[in-house]
Amino acid sequence: MDIVTLDFGSGGKKTHELINNLFYKYFGNDILDQQGDSSIINKLNGRIAITTDSYVVDPIFFPGGDIGKLSICGTINDLAVSGANPLYITVGFIIEEGMSIKELEKIVISMAEYAKRCEVKIVAGDTKVVERGKGDKLYINTTGIGVLEDSINITTSRIQVGDKIIVSGTLGEHGLAILCQRQELNFTTKIISDCNPLDKMIRDILNCSSNVKFIRDITRGGLATILNEIAYERGIGMAVYEKSLPIREEVLFICEVLGLDPLYIANEGKVVVIASSDDSDKVLQCMKDNEFGKDAQIIGEVIKDERERVTLKTELGGTRLLAMTENDLIPRIC
Amino acid sequence: MDIVTLDFGSGGKKTHELINNLFYKYFGNDILDQQGDSSIINKLNGRIAITTDSYVVDPIFFPGGDIGKLSICGTINDLAVSGANPLYITVGFIIEEGMSIKELEKIVISMAEYAKRCEVKIVAGDTKVVERGKGDKLYINTTGIGVLEDSINITTSRIQVGDKIIVSGTLGEHGLAILCQRQELNFTTKIISDCNPLDKMIRDILNCSSNVKFIRDITRGGLATILNEIAYERGIGMAVYEKSLPIREEVLFICEVLGLDPLYIANEGKVVVIASSDDSDKVLQCMKDNEFGKDAQIIGEVIKDERERVTLKTELGGTRLLAMTENDLIPRIC
Repeated sequence: MDIVTLDFGSGGKKTHELINNLFYKYFGNDILDQQGDSSIINKLNGRIAITTDSYVVDPIFFPGGDIGKLSICGTINDLAVSGANPLYITVGFIIEEGMSIKELEKIVISMAEYAKRCEVKIVAGDTKVVERGKGDKLYINTTGIGVLEDSINITTSRIQVGDKIIVSGTLGEHGLAILCQRQELNFTTKIISDCNPLDKMIRDILNCSSNVKFIRDITRGGLATILNEIAYERGIGMAVYEKSLPIREEVLFICEVLGLDPLYIANEGKVVVIASSDDSDKVLQCMKDNEFGKDAQIIGEVIKDERERVTLKTELGGTRLLAMTENDLIPRIC
Repeated sequence: MDIVTLDFGSGGKKTHELINNLFYKYFGNDILDQQGDSSIINKLNGRIAITTDSYVVDPIFFPGGDIGKLSICGTINDLAVSGANPLYITVGFIIEEGMSIKELEKIVISMAEYAKRCEVKIVAGDTKVVERGKGDKLYINTTGIGVLEDSINITTSRIQVGDKIIVSGTLGEHGLAILCQRQELNFTTKIISDCNPLDKMIRDILNCSSNVKFIRDITRGGLATILNEIAYERGIGMAVYEKSLPIREEVLFICEVLGLDPLYIANEGKVVVIASSDDSDKVLQCMKDNEFGKDAQIIGEVIKDERERVTLKTELGGTRLLAMTENDLIPRIC
């Protein structure tokens, strides 16, 4: 038995074998082990944060990670940027008939590893199998639950003109790593996805300053899209300084070859933070002290602009408008 | 713009249009409207029940419902059978490129209708689009959160020899409705799926007797599979009386024609309840008083059997073993 067949989704013997030999084996914990139709967790103290994401990344294995690592880190990061402490995750698998059980096991191990690392429990799961040609190996939904301390208030409404925009590291790696792997593009330097859990760094940032007003992970649409969303929500402008943008040489080079703009390419292990000008250096240092924030930079500031534009101040002294994306540059990167 | 394109999953303008014109329009509530990367809900009082399910039903529209109604009712039922009061649901869409927006809207409306009916709020969502031939119109994940009152204790460990087995209505309709629709089988009588929310009936049952020990919704694998699971978990036997089984004439007829056994076919609006012998008539009456429990019947009892067998006592006085399903009789019914 080395591939997944439709029987694995029947709810019968094969489903139970899969659940016991794979999911319980690696995900097992006190809550999951007692699961009935729902899992029961104890009372939570505080406001509760909930987020859901389906992962359809193609290919499911890529330099720097796989769909399993991505599905855990992505959901942990969504909780963390809201200021929540990630606690529980549910997992829904949609498997295409014919998928290798070895590959599925690798992915499950990877999910278990990152859940453990972030001290998050996988509390409920579901498996469905669809016929060949009705899926693409594996899609995973993860839904995350976390708790917010009373003092936390991450919201665009706190953003003011003069606040600094900080990114936690180099831009564009995840999307470009996926694209190069998918298209089998062989450049001399391999781009590695930055997919990683940012919960610890974000907790540190929030502990070091109460003037961190907003945090968002830089995913689909890239930095430019996210800044546009914030500008629109808050009715302000954003000025970004090209010379301050942390982008790796090889990312710039490949983007130029392929005609892509790294400001619109997804990361999966970077956040953009908006903090008061006074605290921005402190927050920057706090990021730099973290494993996943070494290349952090202050890249711009919030400006007054009724037209809610995001502008790039180029190294040559010009100004370029960074508009909202119209098209999907690289589909299925998460 | 009448079909979903890959751009709708980009995280850019098209994604925002879809979210605003469809999801916020129909799902909108105080929590969803303020959503950032996570949704924030107030402190919950009591133990929390969590469940997740992905829905891959084929076809997405069927007599008696659609994938949207199913995805809400299925998750509400999973919470309810654990004894929880369903409160919140998250929704993850995986859409195949080319899906009709009209059909998607119909499904979203159907989800909104049943969420409202059950007083459940849709608090977070996610949309991904995959290329043609990498999905099958639409897959939906719903994750549900509910709260359990302190007094609730639904567990197989309370089940004892002598307890009665009660089903809330006629068996096999959902799976058979899906199969007939998918294969375009035209019988004189159309089988209608029994897909429905059972939260109210289950609340009533739990209020009427503290000797309701276990409840489970009869889905994948049908009644026989579920009774086998319970027998195995608890180390007991189950005796089912054929003459007491509520099965519609037309379901029996079509099953005979197709060589199927209705005891292995899924419902999506029925539960099996195990209650003490003393309270079983009271619980039965309570079910019958409910819209979705009119055809409830006591169908058997828990017996001592170290071999953990589920047996059917036939009308002719014989005994037939109801084994655990090996194969998937009808794939993708939920």
